[in-house]
Amino acid sequence: MEVYYAIVPCYISPRFMGSGYKTIPSGGITSAKGFLAGAVHAGIRSEDELDLGILYSEAPCAAAGVFTTNQIKSAPVIISQRHLANGRGQAIVANSGCANACVGEQGLADALEMAGLAAAKLGIPLEDVLAASTGVIGAPLPMDRVRSGIREIGLSREGGHDFARAIMTTDTAIKEIAIQVNTGEFIIAGAAKGAGMIHPDLATMLCFITTDALVDARFLQSSLLRAVEISLNMISVDGDTSPSDCVFLLANGLAKNEMISFNNGEAFRQALNDVCIYLARSIARGGEGATKLMEVTVEGAKQQAEARLAARTIARSSLVKAAMHGNDPNWGRVVAALGRSGAELVEERLDVYLSNICVMKQGCPMPFNKEDVRTALATGETVLIRVCLNLGTSKATAWGCDLSEEYVTINSQYTT
Amino acid sequence: MEVYYAIVPCYISPRFMGSGYKTIPSGGITSAKGFLAGAVHAGIRSEDELDLGILYSEAPCAAAGVFTTNQIKSAPVIISQRHLANGRGQAIVANSGCANACVGEQGLADALEMAGLAAAKLGIPLEDVLAASTGVIGAPLPMDRVRSGIREIGLSREGGHDFARAIMTTDTAIKEIAIQVNTGEFIIAGAAKGAGMIHPDLATMLCFITTDALVDARFLQSSLLRAVEISLNMISVDGDTSPSDCVFLLANGLAKNEMISFNNGEAFRQALNDVCIYLARSIARGGEGATKLMEVTVEGAKQQAEARLAARTIARSSLVKAAMHGNDPNWGRVVAALGRSGAELVEERLDVYLSNICVMKQGCPMPFNKEDVRTALATGETVLIRVCLNLGTSKATAWGCDLSEEYVTINSQYTT
Repeated sequence: MEVYYAIVPCYISPRFMGSGYKTIPSGGITSAKGFLAGAVHAGIRSEDELDLGILYSEAPCAAAGVFTTNQIKSAPVIISQRHLANGRGQAIVANSGCANACVGEQGLADALEMAGLAAAKLGIPLEDVLAASTGVIGAPLPMDRVRSGIREIGLSREGGHDFARAIMTTDTAIKEIAIQVNTGEFIIAGAAKGAGMIHPDLATMLCFITTDALVDARFLQSSLLRAVEISLNMISVDGDTSPSDCVFLLANGLAKNEMISFNNGEAFRQALNDVCIYLARSIARGGEGATKLMEVTVEGAKQQAEARLAARTIARSSLVKAAMHGNDPNWGRVVAALGRSGAELVEERLDVYLSNICVMKQGCPMPFNKEDVRTALATGETVLIRVCLNLGTSKATAWGCDLSEEYVTINSQYTT
Repeated sequence: MEVYYAIVPCYISPRFMGSGYKTIPSGGITSAKGFLAGAVHAGIRSEDELDLGILYSEAPCAAAGVFTTNQIKSAPVIISQRHLANGRGQAIVANSGCANACVGEQGLADALEMAGLAAAKLGIPLEDVLAASTGVIGAPLPMDRVRSGIREIGLSREGGHDFARAIMTTDTAIKEIAIQVNTGEFIIAGAAKGAGMIHPDLATMLCFITTDALVDARFLQSSLLRAVEISLNMISVDGDTSPSDCVFLLANGLAKNEMISFNNGEAFRQALNDVCIYLARSIARGGEGATKLMEVTVEGAKQQAEARLAARTIARSSLVKAAMHGNDPNWGRVVAALGRSGAELVEERLDVYLSNICVMKQGCPMPFNKEDVRTALATGETVLIRVCLNLGTSKATAWGCDLSEEYVTINSQYTT
């Protein structure tokens, strides 16, 4: 597996980043003040890759989290939910190569021990440590390797990139971002992993966000929920929801800004949204076997929930995804997916665009040059699908990726 | 595309056929008394394959139908729903190569003309003709070819096989069956097509069933609904529901049996169930790119609806399907799909079996020999996945197929 250590810049287009802040070149989750991280190859993954990492804040943080809605939850998800109950946290310990899910009571004991080892190493209370694991389901954590690995991890201001690499499984690109908000008043940064089993529902794969902003804890949780709703909850790689999905946000306040809360939080919220959207797009683009990002916008819905449902259904359709892989302008599949989505529609009002070329207008096929659309679909890293229901004013965007033979190859040989 | 004209016998296992009737060798939809059919290559499909057919009963029939729940409905679906309102029918005209969907008012006019041409040819009322089309969405029917094609079709007692071939698109095997019920008292026969865009919801792709039994029309519709519920509604190839899905059942009464109705219909119902299950399994096995049938049984659910939901969710999971393609005993994906299905579960009670080998017992992983399970998964045409929730007594079975690279190849180049 080839791993790229640099951010692939085309994962994000400038229009998704507001004008009130700027991206930190080569930034990552330790770009915000007071955050340290590090990772080692503990041997949990068989490949010679980083697989165990710690993220640590020098000051205690207001902490927020969103978790998988899968009824089967990994042990670290259960532990972290408990530890987040007080709205505080100071460190995250995470591994790849083993999800620590579906292993009975042993899983909880192992997740607790993993968090406890990190707490002891850092000299902080156990309940201030969050844990996250990703990898094979149904295998126990190799605790001897976890123990020695945690001992060996060295923390540094530059360690964010290693931490981001340590949570990767079949990911082919590192997913990191850091931005300065309000002309440098504070920084929001994030790292994520996710390549398969991606169809989050109220949460997504592993995603870690840090900020040195001083933020009210209730506002922090509310902002994270809203950001996840329009970003990580709007992506799909394969329609499968993982038991390990979680998003953590730590705010340590070291930027010494005026406390951000509901009355003055708009800039923070917007920046957090953009960070989450960047990471969501990166996960979709980095889907297993994906060769391009698919962006589906549904406009003119009567209700927001319907726009979301329709956009997600199209972005998830295997047939749409396969057609986009082959640059096949088979827009009938877009309409068929829309029709089964449950969103209210009137066929005679439907407009459909592929890469900004109108292929259906008011429910009737529009003549188009197949080669032009093929070329448009083949050009660039992002395929745009736009549907106008023309029934109302609600709008939503979802992200997915194309479905390639490579996806099947990866997933037919995962544990063996 | 290679086409097999014989029924692949392994599509069905004897345990799915009751003992009260026997399969007619090389039987098809014209095996029941009084049914004639025929098909031609009209040129709707570009390949040199049959693409337009007529099925006709010498006597008027009690008729039942079940249709797609997709909000986008093909024109023939709309026309056939109207024509079925009186519970009668005598002929079906069907084509492949063009779905006649999403083409506006022209679609309805074309579907009506197609039915009208068949009615004129056969000398029966327009409203006794049902129409069905399958193929590319968004392209108009080439009516000149339909007109000359309908003129050229010759009807015969042997024409059922040609009719079944004329509705195929990416299908690689013909799907037909005919059985004698009650020691030959009457015959039930069926033909179906379906290879992609298969995730029926209250109906499935094109499926035609004939019987020479005399059956009460209300009982016929009720029996078809029940049969579809446990057969064609329990399959998935790719999670996509087609605008063209329909199932038709024609009963012409030429077997001259005592009228079958609610009071004496058990044998008929059971036979119809088995015919529908046979066709459903055949469609799942014949999914685009599929190399094997996947049978998912969920037992011990509190409610029937939950068992159905859980079985269908697992059978539809891209990750489970890809794992089964590679004979990878990655049962964690089965549990993850179950967990997001919405069915109530208690992790500590879960038992999971792959090809009858227990891989999870009471929520804990069971040690198993990976090679044994790999071999079991690789052996035979059917992969069995069994989940016991151990919460109640409800049970459901769903069918799907593995996900292969070939599925992607087929679907990335469909219209171009």
